[in-house]
Amino acid sequence: MRLDELARVAKDLHDAFLEKPVLELRGHALPDQQRVVAFIHELRATLFPSYFGTFRGEGDDLTCLMEQLGDLFWAATRLIHDTVSHRCPAPCHDGCEAFRESARRAAEFVGKLPRIRQALAMDIQAAHEGDPAARDHDEVILAYPGLFAIMVYRLAHELHLQGVRLIPRIMTEYAHSITGIDIHPGARIGHSFFIDHGTGVVIGETCEIGNNVKIYQGVTLGALSIPRDEQGNLVRDGKRHPTIEDDVVIYAGATILGGETVIGRGSVIGGNVWLIESVPPGSKVLNRPTIEMR
Amino acid sequence: MRLDELARVAKDLHDAFLEKPVLELRGHALPDQQRVVAFIHELRATLFPSYFGTFRGEGDDLTCLMEQLGDLFWAATRLIHDTVSHRCPAPCHDGCEAFRESARRAAEFVGKLPRIRQALAMDIQAAHEGDPAARDHDEVILAYPGLFAIMVYRLAHELHLQGVRLIPRIMTEYAHSITGIDIHPGARIGHSFFIDHGTGVVIGETCEIGNNVKIYQGVTLGALSIPRDEQGNLVRDGKRHPTIEDDVVIYAGATILGGETVIGRGSVIGGNVWLIESVPPGSKVLNRPTIEMR
Amino acid sequence: MRLDELARVAKDLHDAFLEKPVLELRGHALPDQQRVVAFIHELRATLFPSYFGTFRGEGDDLTCLMEQLGDLFWAATRLIHDTVSHRCPAPCHDGCEAFRESARRAAEFVGKLPRIRQALAMDIQAAHEGDPAARDHDEVILAYPGLFAIMVYRLAHELHLQGVRLIPRIMTEYAHSITGIDIHPGARIGHSFFIDHGTGVVIGETCEIGNNVKIYQGVTLGALSIPRDEQGNLVRDGKRHPTIEDDVVIYAGATILGGETVIGRGSVIGGNVWLIESVPPGSKVLNRPTIEMR
Amino acid sequence: MRLDELARVAKDLHDAFLEKPVLELRGHALPDQQRVVAFIHELRATLFPSYFGTFRGEGDDLTCLMEQLGDLFWAATRLIHDTVSHRCPAPCHDGCEAFRESARRAAEFVGKLPRIRQALAMDIQAAHEGDPAARDHDEVILAYPGLFAIMVYRLAHELHLQGVRLIPRIMTEYAHSITGIDIHPGARIGHSFFIDHGTGVVIGETCEIGNNVKIYQGVTLGALSIPRDEQGNLVRDGKRHPTIEDDVVIYAGATILGGETVIGRGSVIGGNVWLIESVPPGSKVLNRPTIEMR
Amino acid sequence: MRLDELARVAKDLHDAFLEKPVLELRGHALPDQQRVVAFIHELRATLFPSYFGTFRGEGDDLTCLMEQLGDLFWAATRLIHDTVSHRCPAPCHDGCEAFRESARRAAEFVGKLPRIRQALAMDIQAAHEGDPAARDHDEVILAYPGLFAIMVYRLAHELHLQGVRLIPRIMTEYAHSITGIDIHPGARIGHSFFIDHGTGVVIGETCEIGNNVKIYQGVTLGALSIPRDEQGNLVRDGKRHPTIEDDVVIYAGATILGGETVIGRGSVIGGNVWLIESVPPGSKVLNRPTIEMR
Amino acid sequence: MRLDELARVAKDLHDAFLEKPVLELRGHALPDQQRVVAFIHELRATLFPSYFGTFRGEGDDLTCLMEQLGDLFWAATRLIHDTVSHRCPAPCHDGCEAFRESARRAAEFVGKLPRIRQALAMDIQAAHEGDPAARDHDEVILAYPGLFAIMVYRLAHELHLQGVRLIPRIMTEYAHSITGIDIHPGARIGHSFFIDHGTGVVIGETCEIGNNVKIYQGVTLGALSIPRDEQGNLVRDGKRHPTIEDDVVIYAGATILGGETVIGRGSVIGGNVWLIESVPPGSKVLNRPTIEMR
Repeated sequence: MRLDELARVAKDLHDAFLEKPVLELRGHALPDQQRVVAFIHELRATLFPSYFGTFRGEGDDLTCLMEQLGDLFWAATRLIHDTVSHRCPAPCHDGCEAFRESARRAAEFVGKLPRIRQALAMDIQAAHEGDPAARDHDEVILAYPGLFAIMVYRLAHELHLQGVRLIPRIMTEYAHSITGIDIHPGARIGHSFFIDHGTGVVIGETCEIGNNVKIYQGVTLGALSIPRDEQGNLVRDGKRHPTIEDDVVIYAGATILGGETVIGRGSVIGGNVWLIESVPPGSKVLNRPTIEMR
Repeated sequence: MRLDELARVAKDLHDAFLEKPVLELRGHALPDQQRVVAFIHELRATLFPSYFGTFRGEGDDLTCLMEQLGDLFWAATRLIHDTVSHRCPAPCHDGCEAFRESARRAAEFVGKLPRIRQALAMDIQAAHEGDPAARDHDEVILAYPGLFAIMVYRLAHELHLQGVRLIPRIMTEYAHSITGIDIHPGARIGHSFFIDHGTGVVIGETCEIGNNVKIYQGVTLGALSIPRDEQGNLVRDGKRHPTIEDDVVIYAGATILGGETVIGRGSVIGGNVWLIESVPPGSKVLNRPTIEMR
Repeated sequence: MRLDELARVAKDLHDAFLEKPVLELRGHALPDQQRVVAFIHELRATLFPSYFGTFRGEGDDLTCLMEQLGDLFWAATRLIHDTVSHRCPAPCHDGCEAFRESARRAAEFVGKLPRIRQALAMDIQAAHEGDPAARDHDEVILAYPGLFAIMVYRLAHELHLQGVRLIPRIMTEYAHSITGIDIHPGARIGHSFFIDHGTGVVIGETCEIGNNVKIYQGVTLGALSIPRDEQGNLVRDGKRHPTIEDDVVIYAGATILGGETVIGRGSVIGGNVWLIESVPPGSKVLNRPTIEMR
Repeated sequence: MRLDELARVAKDLHDAFLEKPVLELRGHALPDQQRVVAFIHELRATLFPSYFGTFRGEGDDLTCLMEQLGDLFWAATRLIHDTVSHRCPAPCHDGCEAFRESARRAAEFVGKLPRIRQALAMDIQAAHEGDPAARDHDEVILAYPGLFAIMVYRLAHELHLQGVRLIPRIMTEYAHSITGIDIHPGARIGHSFFIDHGTGVVIGETCEIGNNVKIYQGVTLGALSIPRDEQGNLVRDGKRHPTIEDDVVIYAGATILGGETVIGRGSVIGGNVWLIESVPPGSKVLNRPTIEMR
Repeated sequence: MRLDELARVAKDLHDAFLEKPVLELRGHALPDQQRVVAFIHELRATLFPSYFGTFRGEGDDLTCLMEQLGDLFWAATRLIHDTVSHRCPAPCHDGCEAFRESARRAAEFVGKLPRIRQALAMDIQAAHEGDPAARDHDEVILAYPGLFAIMVYRLAHELHLQGVRLIPRIMTEYAHSITGIDIHPGARIGHSFFIDHGTGVVIGETCEIGNNVKIYQGVTLGALSIPRDEQGNLVRDGKRHPTIEDDVVIYAGATILGGETVIGRGSVIGGNVWLIESVPPGSKVLNRPTIEMR
Repeated sequence: MRLDELARVAKDLHDAFLEKPVLELRGHALPDQQRVVAFIHELRATLFPSYFGTFRGEGDDLTCLMEQLGDLFWAATRLIHDTVSHRCPAPCHDGCEAFRESARRAAEFVGKLPRIRQALAMDIQAAHEGDPAARDHDEVILAYPGLFAIMVYRLAHELHLQGVRLIPRIMTEYAHSITGIDIHPGARIGHSFFIDHGTGVVIGETCEIGNNVKIYQGVTLGALSIPRDEQGNLVRDGKRHPTIEDDVVIYAGATILGGETVIGRGSVIGGNVWLIESVPPGSKVLNRPTIEMR
């Protein structure tokens, strides 16, 4: 291409930048996906020593753990600070307030890791008990996409609770791209959760899921419809996704919609079922196939 | 393994190469996936400066844009030339015709980037308006797989229109592997298109989609059946996939098949609906659940 | 974080490790995913020279093949040995038995590559004949996720038959994460197998699939229910997934469950069909849509 | 470290930045070493196809060359533009003058590559003729650090002649770090130049070296002393380094200093000789060893 | 190779391991060179923001600095702890003492960075003033190997003062491999130090160098001889290398040896001079060439 | 640049390729430097387990060693085969002779590794005894460039003895670029060899060095002059470099030249000495400094 052609395309592209308000100049870099992914993998290596990453010393050596946790604390601080500060109009000369706040949140997050590890141990147990093809815990940890998606969700959810924006979403979207399982970091999920196969699973922002719940591939826990206010704008708050009580099993391809929909404790929802209303505890909802043979 | 064992396996494998006509020697390398992926990411960094890639100068500096566009022009030329020339029987000594043609197509493609950027701005707007969970444009750009799949489609479609083969398919299959959204580069899609969650979406080669269309995860816009000619060969041409008019919403898991199927403007297609015939504008097609409680 | 805070978190995290029996110290490293992925790509470059990887010499040069096969043999030996030995209580000073056994299995595996290549040639042929959008074999090899998933399955299945654990599962889960197609390495699949689009496909551990079978995205060949023995433990053995005879086509989203379910030769299963019982050869099972227009 | 300790160190470090005038904020990125190194390797792959880099098509295929040259042109344009523009006070909205100038210089540079290739062919010939240990041209190209240093010098010198700053210096310092041979891009060197072993060679900015010159490791062609002007500042211009006429050989460790020092055509300078004045053509200057045996 | 051949070689190699006491099993990993190199580059990016590494926010933003310093603190802690603990017989369950000590040293080190930055600013100034070929400070920072070697030395020296072993040596050997300048971390060097070209410079462990010293390539400041004690073992302590007072210039190839050798303030040592005794302040020591012309 | 300009440059560059006989088309790739470097690092990790590379199992586990040796065997086979076959006019259909020969040489090479390891243990011992600054064996292994250069030489020399060309030279040139120590793979060197600092050391192709020799930086063991035959061609064979007998020490910067020069057992050669004739056993050759004080 000749320089004048390039100049014309550059001018047009630049005009396109201005036309629509999607570009904003910033003093700080946004958190980029690559760093967030590295953060996830460092977290996984800390939570599951000897399974992932380079093996560093014995598992019962507390100093190794302290070093890794110290690293994680700073990685978290930087990521959180990038998010909270990237809209600041000017570099914060002595405005260490945002920084201190980021460090405080990062410390909270790191402090939650032992509890997250306990929850994941129960998820692993649930997977082993829920799938006859799972020979042992090693296989679940090394080869089950459901466990990876749940781990990333549990970590992202903790950041979400700390009021951190964007990073939890980038985290769960990374898990989504790897596993096909799309869990919003805002969802609330109990212990011993198991997702089998998982591709196509969607769990919306305001879902509440109890303990010992098991779901299969293609299950959607979504919104029924999107209300708008009087000005025609989306109503972005409010509970839009269903509640799943303890001990529920939802088979592949089932779709459960609506913020007021409650699946009662111990229910079983059959494959491909389409549910937009509540069912009482202990229900068995099956798809009555209407197929024809020719 | 001993050398004679290896020699025997090598002989058998080599015979397998010859047996079936899937290997052809070439003077040129095929475009490899790694280079195509790098091309996609360079395009994204040019279209969304400050969101992706290294930050190079201010956004309103035309010379940075010109340099990036010059780079993209040459990357496109090399990729296109690899595709058109890899079946040439001999190296083209002075046969610069294929090369000039490749450069011409690459220049056309680069010239279309401003328009593609405008279309993507409208897609971002549509995502923000269509999903209450989307807090702002930044989140859509950084964390929505649907936007990534649509961006790659819009770029690949432009190369498809230039008659470039293989590269557009490798591009959209990369987006497919990342997002679970499979859009054929031959499809025609209007502005303000939004795909939410997206895993399992399939949009076939001869689809036509209007403006302001919104679709959810698991939606298939596919072929009804595959006709064969009198010799039993597949008929590879003709419109095999449906037409979706403006302002249509298609909920999760719906399947719409057939080249003559037209979903009229403003229609709403419910989740898991199975549609193989046209519906008039303004239709609301819902799945009547046939579930039973036990 | 202050050191005493870190020490407390490290202590808690360490306690969490001990609490649940998911961590075991080992003398050997487990096979890590990165090495398994490198192994897959090296295998692909050997099976499809000139399509993938660096081009090394002419395709009809047996010595290049011998060198690549020799490399693959050692990579396979190391991977297999890591798996079989990682639970050994002590380093095996002269216990070369496990090593010799690993080398024997690796040699068996390498010896099967020519046959696997033949099977893949037939799969490519089937894809080209089964999809009007596939212009030639090159496009199938370079851009069809179904072919990638089947290739990884055929390689993993061979290791599974050799009694190798974990590695086949890591292999097929990698293909799952790239393609959304989840095939258990234990499944048995005939020649000329074609999966189109593929996202969401699940093929269970004890499935048996004949020749010339074609399936579309979202198809589940799964277990109907999970029996438990008298102690309440899962029964992990037995045939739990369906049998698909030759020449069957299964359209998108169909769910077929149960170890005793047999889809007779030449049947066509329609999209979104839910099948938990056998159908005779030549059946056409269609979903009778029960939609309502409003 | 506690946050307040970190804040104090950060404050001190920041003060150190301000104290000494070595930091300047810029609108543009400086050319970083990594990109310059990539540029060198891309140039080498273009000048020596089949020896370095991925093999792309036959050597007599002009279109491959055109594509590579087009890539190099843009890489050169970006590098040059970064250098000339990084001190600009503001982003150059329409000030494409600096950009056009960069592109013009890049085109000049690319246009010189054939001549540089010819010169390198003569350097290779000289190395083969000058070293009995060199078995063939391949060994010189693949394993002689002297050739690498001379190649980088010839490329950097051409940019230096175009008035480009910093990049030529980063280029020759990269060669220096790899080979131990430090040639300033400002030096002027004739054809058929050979450096053997090379570690410790220094060739200053204003050296002039004729044709068919051969030098060994540890040879310094340097400045005698550094004059200062009346204000005590260094006089940075003027010829400070020696002139070496055609057909001269300089053995290991010799030191030749001074801008007026001329080594006459055909001279031989012995190892470890220390020379600060001119010698006529045909001289043989030997170190008279003054060693003692004990 | 057949398995029995491999087994024999493995046996022999293993015996070789045992024969000589150079291998010791360890509970912890040694600090590997790759991590040390990454540490150096992270330090350089912190000391010279906008020259090296990714550009993160404005230079006068203290929070960015705090984040980087926090990262460096943890990287230093891990490196130091690996060194001190790699000979521990067992994993230190609650022996946090070594860890606390490592963290304390790391904090000391990070606290010294502002002072190191000030010293480097003076080194840069000295280089610019000492070399007429240096056009500005940017060129010194980006392209002078001497500055890189001095920077690494100043950082390594600080760790050496903290009693850290191995890491400082790995650091300066990395600089040695890049620049050909070999400075032992134990040497003591004043401000405004300049090394020009530098290949072959050796500065020994017990050297003392004053302020405003300038040295050229090939200068050795070494040990005269190595005394042994009565048992014939090396005496590893004591001052073995010379003292260079302020304002001394040492030209290329000069060799100065001996722990009692003192080069008096303001002296000039000529090229290739061989000095093993002290010279008073203000000396000019020149090599009287003893060459012969033939 | 416009396409016609590029075409002209490509034409000129292509003509330059043809003009000088330095480019030859090949059926096989030459061994590229990157693979050779990887080979060196894999060898080092095998010879020094727990010092370099990933830690794989205990050091006394023979099976780990067998696996690594098997990998090295194949890597060596491929490298050797590339070298011997890259001039073959055509792909060798059944000409497995060259391949078998390569495998045989690779097996010989691998079989020599235990002996090379023993030699290196003695070199490490010599370094520790020869340098008071070396605190322990770990420091020698991790931070002494001399040991690295000697290790690469010992490995390359073994390949050289097998008649392998190019690869040994690429290996020692890699060590040269890292350490500044240039040892030709053809040299013959006894046990317990120590090079201190090392930058600038040159050891020529036909050198013979006895046991317990120690040399310092800048020492050249080179050729005196290069004889030509009656046609004026270089005489490439014959002993051109000196012989150094056992227990000799050569201090920094000494130059010893000539194929007939023999340094007798137990001699000490002083720094910067220039020697072109033999000295008897037990000689002490010192540089008598001829400096003047002004």
